[in-house]
Amino acid sequence: MRDTEFMRIGARLFTEGLVGGNFGNISVRAEGGFYITRNGSYLDDPGNPVFVPLEGPVPPEASSEYRVHRQVYRSTRHNALIHAHPPYTVAASLVYDEIVPVDIEGQTFCPIIPVVDGKPGSEEIARNVANALCLSLVTVVKGHGTFASGKSLDEAFILTSLVEHSSHVLWLVGDLQGDTE
Amino acid sequence: MRDTEFMRIGARLFTEGLVGGNFGNISVRAEGGFYITRNGSYLDDPGNPVFVPLEGPVPPEASSEYRVHRQVYRSTRHNALIHAHPPYTVAASLVYDEIVPVDIEGQTFCPIIPVVDGKPGSEEIARNVANALCLSLVTVVKGHGTFASGKSLDEAFILTSLVEHSSHVLWLVGDLQGDTE
Amino acid sequence: MRDTEFMRIGARLFTEGLVGGNFGNISVRAEGGFYITRNGSYLDDPGNPVFVPLEGPVPPEASSEYRVHRQVYRSTRHNALIHAHPPYTVAASLVYDEIVPVDIEGQTFCPIIPVVDGKPGSEEIARNVANALCLSLVTVVKGHGTFASGKSLDEAFILTSLVEHSSHVLWLVGDLQGDTE
Amino acid sequence: MRDTEFMRIGARLFTEGLVGGNFGNISVRAEGGFYITRNGSYLDDPGNPVFVPLEGPVPPEASSEYRVHRQVYRSTRHNALIHAHPPYTVAASLVYDEIVPVDIEGQTFCPIIPVVDGKPGSEEIARNVANALCLSLVTVVKGHGTFASGKSLDEAFILTSLVEHSSHVLWLVGDLQGDTE
Repeated sequence: MRDTEFMRIGARLFTEGLVGGNFGNISVRAEGGFYITRNGSYLDDPGNPVFVPLEGPVPPEASSEYRVHRQVYRSTRHNALIHAHPPYTVAASLVYDEIVPVDIEGQTFCPIIPVVDGKPGSEEIARNVANALCLSLVTVVKGHGTFASGKSLDEAFILTSLVEHSSHVLWLVGDLQGDTE
Repeated sequence: MRDTEFMRIGARLFTEGLVGGNFGNISVRAEGGFYITRNGSYLDDPGNPVFVPLEGPVPPEASSEYRVHRQVYRSTRHNALIHAHPPYTVAASLVYDEIVPVDIEGQTFCPIIPVVDGKPGSEEIARNVANALCLSLVTVVKGHGTFASGKSLDEAFILTSLVEHSSHVLWLVGDLQGDTE
Repeated sequence: MRDTEFMRIGARLFTEGLVGGNFGNISVRAEGGFYITRNGSYLDDPGNPVFVPLEGPVPPEASSEYRVHRQVYRSTRHNALIHAHPPYTVAASLVYDEIVPVDIEGQTFCPIIPVVDGKPGSEEIARNVANALCLSLVTVVKGHGTFASGKSLDEAFILTSLVEHSSHVLWLVGDLQGDTE
Repeated sequence: MRDTEFMRIGARLFTEGLVGGNFGNISVRAEGGFYITRNGSYLDDPGNPVFVPLEGPVPPEASSEYRVHRQVYRSTRHNALIHAHPPYTVAASLVYDEIVPVDIEGQTFCPIIPVVDGKPGSEEIARNVANALCLSLVTVVKGHGTFASGKSLDEAFILTSLVEHSSHVLWLVGDLQGDTE
């Protein structure tokens, strides 16, 4: 059933263009650790998720971003985490220190989206994302992608979708205003 | 059968990128009220629609935008209503007081698309959208999304698709003209 | 079998974003006339195509663009015709008198794409499109959409896809060059 | 099984918008030659791949880009090659002499993407692409498209997807920075 849920959410991430290739990863909290997508898997065809304990050795099949997920489950009470590469949000993170939506949904559900630094796979990115997710349900690693959390995979997915919608509108409006000035 | 129709139209809205996440909502008029998608449901997998009467208590499972739908069915003769979040249209609504298509389909079927204000879920947005839909088949709430009406869900869907097409072309042409000037 | 072919090509047009809503229409030449999609049908779910003779009364179920198709089958030797609304091409047709691709595929297969005028459903558009398709396999009605012809539906589809690809690249390059100047 | 793999990868290329129409081609190395998609086939419905030997006559059903594939298998140790037409990358290749990603994935996996010249189907393009793929896993033919290689079709696909993601972000950021300057 966990497989089915991962695949269902992974398929939605693809359909909306929030991930491409075999990028991105998904996890849910479990007793003493969490289940995460396999290293190198396609999120819409992820196979069996891998259990990673909160402490101690990590199975080699786990996503290489397991450090971020582990740190988030240690430091916060979130139950699910989705990492995606939505292009408008990645672009916005390279230009802004925080992303401030101008559409109403963004202003309601994620009025300020923090942008943090960090090299993929490093302890630094794990720390920065976990710190940001103590105060926010979603954050963006500069030039890399979103980490969205929630009580469930659905919540984390919906937030990922919303952040990209807001970044898209923000980008379009910048351009539109350029036209009318 | 009503479920199937909602799902068919919901899937089209997703395929064309007119909604993302679990945003948007759909309704059709019925005897003494209307059927509307459930609060928080995905439009391409909406489950059973909920009946909302034109007056009196509203079932808690109904979409939180039920106020707009109720006011529209009270004030107009439309039989179907679709609320979506198409990005080019949302962006245009933040810049223009009304959206004026430059493509021929837009000029034929929705030559002036009114933009109204209102906070999602409020009585104000319900009143503003219902007023706009007395004179027009479609309106946009500024920074939020479209409300398109019709004799059927198909008509409301086709209008939603058209408005986004027109907003897309409007945006592209603004840019193209910038290049050639 | 004709149904299946129309649906197969219609689905590809949707998948690539070359049509939205229930817009666009498709036809193939037959003995003494042609088969065309039904008025108001979705191209990915078109139902039974309607036979239209080259002369004389037209069944009311035929696409309202039948005049263009009829004139093209009268004036040219093409065997198939596809009308679509690809957004980058529609935008380009509002700005340029002819579309000149800058990508290699466009330069090879449609180096100059003529843009013509005409009101949808009119005799004028029928004449202008048919004249353009005597000299070119594809033309664009200004602000409206493409008419692409070929020996088969596949040829007409591939050309539609290519024209939009070329218009997309043309648009992107205009923008990129703006950045680097 | 080879058919299934080609179709699986072809479908992903379509889903992500990396090819349109019947453009693009796919091959994998085999004993004494390679299997390549058929001339004119749709990559998501490619039918039986065609065997092409490293030397000697080529079956007429082979993709017309077989020269590039043959030269790559002669000159390099790559086992798979994918040619696609991703629009942001094609646009970038018309403007830049090499594409330099600004997103972290691009900087990690393809920090400098060489752009080469060549007419489709010519010996010149075959030589230029093969030379570039001695030093890089991916290259772009100016105004034409990507050639991505790897140990497997999956590797070549993932790289194609990544290059387009990086080109997309590069393009968006150019635009965003234009807004903020």
